[in-house]
Amino acid sequence: MLLLLDTEVTMNHRQYEQHVKQLRALVERRLSSLVRHNGPNDLYDACRYVIFGGGKRVRSTLVILACEAVGGKSAVAVSAGAAVELMHNFTLVHDDVMDNARSRRGKPTVHTKWDVNNALLVGDVLLGLAYQCLFETTNGDVRRMADVFTSGLVDVCEGQALDLEFERAKNVLLEDYFTMIEKKTGGLIAMSAELGGLVGGGSGRQVTALRRFGHFLGRAFQLQDDLLDVVANVKEFGKTIGGDIVKGKKTFLLLKAMERARAKDKRILHRATTSARLPEGKRTITAKEQRAVAAVTAIYKRYGVIESAKAHVRRDTSSAIKALAVLPETSARAMLQWYSELLVRRVS
Amino acid sequence: MLLLLDTEVTMNHRQYEQHVKQLRALVERRLSSLVRHNGPNDLYDACRYVIFGGGKRVRSTLVILACEAVGGKSAVAVSAGAAVELMHNFTLVHDDVMDNARSRRGKPTVHTKWDVNNALLVGDVLLGLAYQCLFETTNGDVRRMADVFTSGLVDVCEGQALDLEFERAKNVLLEDYFTMIEKKTGGLIAMSAELGGLVGGGSGRQVTALRRFGHFLGRAFQLQDDLLDVVANVKEFGKTIGGDIVKGKKTFLLLKAMERARAKDKRILHRATTSARLPEGKRTITAKEQRAVAAVTAIYKRYGVIESAKAHVRRDTSSAIKALAVLPETSARAMLQWYSELLVRRVS
Repeated sequence: MLLLLDTEVTMNHRQYEQHVKQLRALVERRLSSLVRHNGPNDLYDACRYVIFGGGKRVRSTLVILACEAVGGKSAVAVSAGAAVELMHNFTLVHDDVMDNARSRRGKPTVHTKWDVNNALLVGDVLLGLAYQCLFETTNGDVRRMADVFTSGLVDVCEGQALDLEFERAKNVLLEDYFTMIEKKTGGLIAMSAELGGLVGGGSGRQVTALRRFGHFLGRAFQLQDDLLDVVANVKEFGKTIGGDIVKGKKTFLLLKAMERARAKDKRILHRATTSARLPEGKRTITAKEQRAVAAVTAIYKRYGVIESAKAHVRRDTSSAIKALAVLPETSARAMLQWYSELLVRRVS
Repeated sequence: MLLLLDTEVTMNHRQYEQHVKQLRALVERRLSSLVRHNGPNDLYDACRYVIFGGGKRVRSTLVILACEAVGGKSAVAVSAGAAVELMHNFTLVHDDVMDNARSRRGKPTVHTKWDVNNALLVGDVLLGLAYQCLFETTNGDVRRMADVFTSGLVDVCEGQALDLEFERAKNVLLEDYFTMIEKKTGGLIAMSAELGGLVGGGSGRQVTALRRFGHFLGRAFQLQDDLLDVVANVKEFGKTIGGDIVKGKKTFLLLKAMERARAKDKRILHRATTSARLPEGKRTITAKEQRAVAAVTAIYKRYGVIESAKAHVRRDTSSAIKALAVLPETSARAMLQWYSELLVRRVS
């Protein structure tokens, strides 16, 4: 039985939380020491603004937990973890420019607070800092680590390119959607787990298993993000509910509903998702948009696509956890399981 | 006597040219094999468009010649050379977005032909491909190479950030200007030479000397670019003559003239360089702009700043070549000298 029993979760929950908190503190300290103070002001002010803008450090936590799950010490994975966070922040800054997003984590985006040019450079230099940080890792095969890290970068660019293509495309298949999220979201998550395995000195088989774990977890994570757009409450989620619908984003829910819906409902979906766009980060939507969100959500419910998405999340999470069976049965592995379930437990 | 004698140049000129041509072919082949065909179309079409858009491959040639100058075989440096070209192309694509440049090398820029979003991603993925290419290098200390490569990236971002700051700044000192070009142009040139030395298995002393060589060469190269704006002829140069003046770019010439000019001339300089801006890549300038260019050029001549710039180019080139004295006195070293003199010989 690989899924954690509820009693076990309760038992270790506090200890796990404490440990994750400590790991996060290590990463924060590493990041603080990194961004130099003597470079061009706008550039490094904005870097600090992004890096310390309140991320949850999910990816660095995965790197370190994966390292521990193959028997490595957490300390050796801190630089690699920080490197992944920097790469993640690079993607956020550039994506926000591409999406015309005005706010992130409740604050103005870099190109809103400074300008597009600075946002471009901030993204670029964050990537440079990410590589610098990665190469401070002294454990593991540096060439393999660099390859894995760089594949993550290429994946994330390809995923974002597909996402942009889908915005313009008329017919996007669910299959295409999965390819996109596997690269855009899954790319960094899979890379984080694999990198942790490498830094921790895992065997080839263990590292492959960790990549597989990350692949499924990344998929579940993104599907769940799609779900949260319609089922979460604003306070918890921190984004506008129905934002994806108003923006006409081709999420799993929309594509699945399009696949299943009858002609009349298809037209409603089509109309609702091709009307005026909501700029990202805008928190209030108009009454008309609210009606569209309600209509689309009703269709989602009628055709059972919300249930389908939940089933997908459960299945992918379970596949992720199954992949970990290759690793030794330690509390570190249990913690990695616990953390992944925590990540996708925002809806259930 | 470190400077090449004219007779020696004549003697080896054709052989050198032939060799550089062969190196370039190796790099082209390496680049061709790199950009995959099965990714998102816009992304990789634009990558190929940029990479094969007619660059002179100066940086990869420097990498390979530096490798040979420390006794390495050219073949081992081809991937590192191609990696530097990819990084260089990344900077061009993003810089063109930041500068609002409509054309480069006589063709529409990526964000003009596609859009800004694609240009952002193209730059990002080129950097990913650059690192992939770099790590295919099997010679040399991979960690050192990665460090040097990444420092080049950070330098180039900082240099561009300073350049953008200078556009808005009222008072830019010549000292600041040198810091900027040392990072923005010199960063990649110095990195190229250093990387070549590392890949070629050069000693610590040799690698340091190559970096020093690249540092001075990069400075000379940029100063000469500033000069070409006023003294070249359009056909040779491929850019609008006086473009820097019309754009109000704070070049060595302008800053030096500002330093030297009397009040009245200073006002002319100020007026000429803060009037309407010429978008980059626009080939014709108005009659009014032409008069401004003539007035500024006259001031440059009157205060001897063109001569000062030429003297700087000569001095930096000479310092670059002197730095090579540490290397064994081979034909490979002679070729590296010949190539650097060729690079800065566009004016003299």
